Formats: sequence, C-alpha cells, structure tokens
Amino acid sequence: MSKLLIVGTVAFDAIETPFGKTDKILGGAATYISLSASKFGVNSGIVSVVGGDFPKSHLNMLEKNGIDISGIEIIKNGKTFFWSGKYHNDLNVRDTLITELNVLADFNPIVPQAFVDAEFLMLGNLHPAVQMGVIKQMPKRPKLVVLDTMNFWMNNTLPELMEVIKKVDVITINDEEARQLSGEYSLVKAAHKIHTMGPKYVVIKKGEHGALLFNNGNVFFAPALPLEEVFDPTGAGDTFAGGFIGYLTKTEDLSFGNMKNAIIYGSNLASFCVEKFGTTKMETLSQSEIQQRLTQFKNLTQFDIELQ
Amino acid sequence: MSKLLIVGTVAFDAIETPFGKTDKILGGAATYISLSASKFGVNSGIVSVVGGDFPKSHLNMLEKNGIDISGIEIIKNGKTFFWSGKYHNDLNVRDTLITELNVLADFNPIVPQAFVDAEFLMLGNLHPAVQMGVIKQMPKRPKLVVLDTMNFWMNNTLPELMEVIKKVDVITINDEEARQLSGEYSLVKAAHKIHTMGPKYVVIKKGEHGALLFNNGNVFFAPALPLEEVFDPTGAGDTFAGGFIGYLTKTEDLSFGNMKNAIIYGSNLASFCVEKFGTTKMETLSQSEIQQRLTQFKNLTQFDIELQ
Repeated sequence: MSKLLIVGTVAFDAIETPFGKTDKILGGAATYISLSASKFGVNSGIVSVVGGDFPKSHLNMLEKNGIDISGIEIIKNGKTFFWSGKYHNDLNVRDTLITELNVLADFNPIVPQAFVDAEFLMLGNLHPAVQMGVIKQMPKRPKLVVLDTMNFWMNNTLPELMEVIKKVDVITINDEEARQLSGEYSLVKAAHKIHTMGPKYVVIKKGEHGALLFNNGNVFFAPALPLEEVFDPTGAGDTFAGGFIGYLTKTEDLSFGNMKNAIIYGSNLASFCVEKFGTTKMETLSQSEIQQRLTQFKNLTQFDIELQ
Repeated sequence: MSKLLIVGTVAFDAIETPFGKTDKILGGAATYISLSASKFGVNSGIVSVVGGDFPKSHLNMLEKNGIDISGIEIIKNGKTFFWSGKYHNDLNVRDTLITELNVLADFNPIVPQAFVDAEFLMLGNLHPAVQMGVIKQMPKRPKLVVLDTMNFWMNNTLPELMEVIKKVDVITINDEEARQLSGEYSLVKAAHKIHTMGPKYVVIKKGEHGALLFNNGNVFFAPALPLEEVFDPTGAGDTFAGGFIGYLTKTEDLSFGNMKNAIIYGSNLASFCVEKFGTTKMETLSQSEIQQRLTQFKNLTQFDIELQ
C-alpha cells in the first residue's frame, strides 16, 4: 500500500461567518488534508509544528483517524500558529483579522524516517522554502507531488515558489491565483502557461463554481454540489486537495480518467466540510454519506445524449 | 412535428469588447433564440417588430435558416430597437451605453395564425405585458412555455412579471436575478421559492460558470465550455435558451433526463455564440461542429466511478 506524506499547518482558527462565531478551534491545511485523505484508509503522515498550547485531544483525534503524527513537532515553550478571519454575506469574500505565525516562523520540517519513501507527497499551503525542505528530504522522487499555494507566496516569495512549482506534478490554486501566476485572463490560457512552468496537471479551484483539471489539452470539470446553506468555507480547498490525493494514493492509478474521479471525490468531500464549523463534519463523516453524495454528483452531472 | 413560437426583440446592437468594436449589427433576443433553435431543424416562427430601417438581408438570412418571419411586423416610418453596450476586461461586467426602444415602445404583438397552436412557446426577454399578450393569443395552452426575463422587469414591472411567471413551466434567469426574485442568497433555496411562484423548472444561468436546472428536488448542472478566448458574450443567454427549447421541440420529450440533454445543448450552442461578434458564428455553424463539441462536453463532465 502506498504512503502519503502531508506537509502543512496544524493550527488554531477563530472564524466568524454570517451564521455564527467560534473561539480558537482546530484548523490548519494539514489537518483538513489529512482528515479528508483518511476517508480512503490510506497510510498517511503529517509533517508540521505546534506549540505547547496545542491540546493533546486534537492529536489523539488525528491518530484515531489513522494519521501518523510522529512528524508533528511540539515546541513546548512556543505557541501554535493562529489565524482568525471573518466571512462576508457572500462567503466568497473574507477578511483576515489576525495572523500569528508563532512556532511556524522558524519551522524546520523533518520528515519521519517511515515516510521518506512515501510514493505520494502533498505540499499544503505554506512557505515554499518549507515545501522545498520536504522535497529535499525524499531521496527517491515520489510518484506524485501535489502543490497547494496561494497569492501571498506569489506576492512575497515568487522566486522560491517558482523553484517548487518546477518540481511538482500537480498544482492547485484558485482562479484569481491562476491569472496572477500566468498573467493570462482566460483560464485555458493560464493553464497552458502554468504547464510550461512544470506541473503536468493544473487544478483551478473556483469555490462554489467548482474546479477545473487541465492536463495538456485534456480538461475536466467538477461542479461544487449546490447546497441549501454553506455554513463555513474554511478548509474547503484543503479538504478538496486531501480527497484528490487520498483517492489517488488509494487507487495508485495516475491515468487522466482516474484523476477525474479524484477531482470528483475532492468536490464530494469539500461539500461536507462546509456544512459545519471547522473540522466538525469531517471528524464524523461516514463512508455511506460519501457514497450517497457520489450518487448526487452523478445525478448532477451525468447525461446521456447519443452522438449523431 | 411540433411548432415553436418565439417572441422577442429583433434589433440593432453596437458592441464594444476588449477585442474590438462593431457598428450597428444584427441583434435581439428573438434573433439569437431562433438561430440557435434552427440548428434542430424545428418549425419555428418569430413574433417581433422592426422599423423601416431594418435591412431586408437580415430577414432573408432568418428565412434561409427556416425561421418563419411572417410575425415580424415592419413599421415603415419607425426605427428598429437599438442597444449599445461596452464590456469590461472581465466580460461578466458590461455597461449599457444606449437603449433606444423606438418601435418597441408601442409594440402590440400579433401571433400569426399558423402559430397560435404552437406546442412550444419561448417568451424572450422583453416587457411582461408583451409576453402576456402572446400567451393570451394561444387558445390551447402550449405543452411547454419557457420564460426569459431580467432584473430590469423585476425593478420596474414586478406585478405584471409575476403574472407571467405564474403561467410558465420554465424560467431562465441569472444567479443575481434569482437571488433578487426570491430574496434568498442560496441558489438552492432561491429555486425552491421560485417553484412556488409557478415554474416547475428553474434554470439559473451563471455565464462562464455554467447553468443549473432545478425541478422540485432534482438538480442538474451544465458547465460552460472553458474557452481560450471569449470574444463577445452578447446573445449567449438567448442562444442557450434557443438551444434548450429547440432541442425539446425537436425531441418532444419533457422528462427530466431529456431536460438535462437540452441544457447541455444550450451550453453547447452558447459556447459557439461567444466566439465571434454578434450572430456571425451562429449563422454558419454546422452540425458536425455541434456534434464535435458535444464530445468535448462529454469529456469535460463524464466520469466513471463505481459506487461501493
């Protein structure tokens, strides 16, 4: 069975949406990615860092979901990364209220020995130098490296980011970031240009408008499931990425057809993530719920026209 | 063979996009709807009005495409409806520069005798009183009535619009209009509410983000085809509606499964409309191009995951 290594933040989030407000709750890219990937029963491990203030109960929860936490360094006299944000009525817009890097400021990732030969590597959204640090600790190149990043790194650490982009198979970014990175407004042209930077696969996330997968001329689209209510969008993109790489790790099939399935599973899991605050829904999500929603995705997208 | 009656504007448009600029060219909702529906070889007729300034060559072109123009009244000493608009770099935003109603101001629609028993009725976007005037001239209710409208009528003639909405089977509006009409932000909730106003089917058009079809709990999504370049979005919504009702008129099958196909054909044809200025592409579009694009839509959306 293939192994999946995930690098990313494990953090505290404080979230305000039109529907309510939370104190510091469990958050972080690696948290959402690993919980999502865990639904496929894969052998996964996290590389991250937290402070002495991070509750043991959160770590236990991750372990109970089959996630190896030996790569989560605990800095006893440090504080855990903290992000606070507020969503507008249209949940596509959010303001960041607080960003406290804390222990993340000096994070020096160390890949546990058991995962240096992982076949699948997910680089969650954080400083490209940290992402590169993880790549360099893996003597054999993984079968598939997926990179998530954001406009902040394009604005502040572009040369380092470009070095990482060169080394990955898949990049996942949102539509505005694809436009910024490529200088092209058309997402088709943007994807073409990003291919030339390294990634054979470009995944463009459009939030409630779904996600596009490009692979040198091939293109696939997965809609977001239309929901009665989106409660809290935090973590949806990470959950999407976790579902994508989790499914690929389980099936070990990197054909474009199977990538399509992976994108659908990513959308499927993300549609659950947004139904409750933080990781609440992802912690209890059952296989039968996922399978039921897969039927909804089929009904939503599949049609049967005979070609003439 | 079923007949399709289309009421809507036949007009002059002057369009500016980031890619160029036109003088007064052929435009109008009924023009785009009928050209799109004509690709299915249906027996269709237009009810509309133009001025003495309207070139005979445009009418000839419509006739050559098999469209009955006997219901297009020509007011010799009047001027044709004229709209001028400018699109921003992101083509989702446009400014209306000029609207000259001209002969449309006093338009009193008269349905040609040959079409009073049409089984399919498309109410293109114009004053709800005109739409109602057409409905009342049809002694037997058509099998399917599709209504297109916009925020302008919601703002200025809401009571009259609501009377029309009560009488139709399908309403097609964009996402912002669905929110305005229903007072609900969630499109799922908006569709539920609009069902209670009359229409069993609610089609929500999201431009480059595709279209949703709701029918009391059932939902289907058709993406827009990701294009290298969108040249001129004018008429895309009408072309979509024309493809939708044209396919239904041809197949005479009103099951939800066939409605899905109709939505896909609508998206298919709209993806051509935006490739050139005005009606240019629609006038020459061939069956083989449409079938080829259908294959692209299948590749874009169809996946094959086994349920577990």
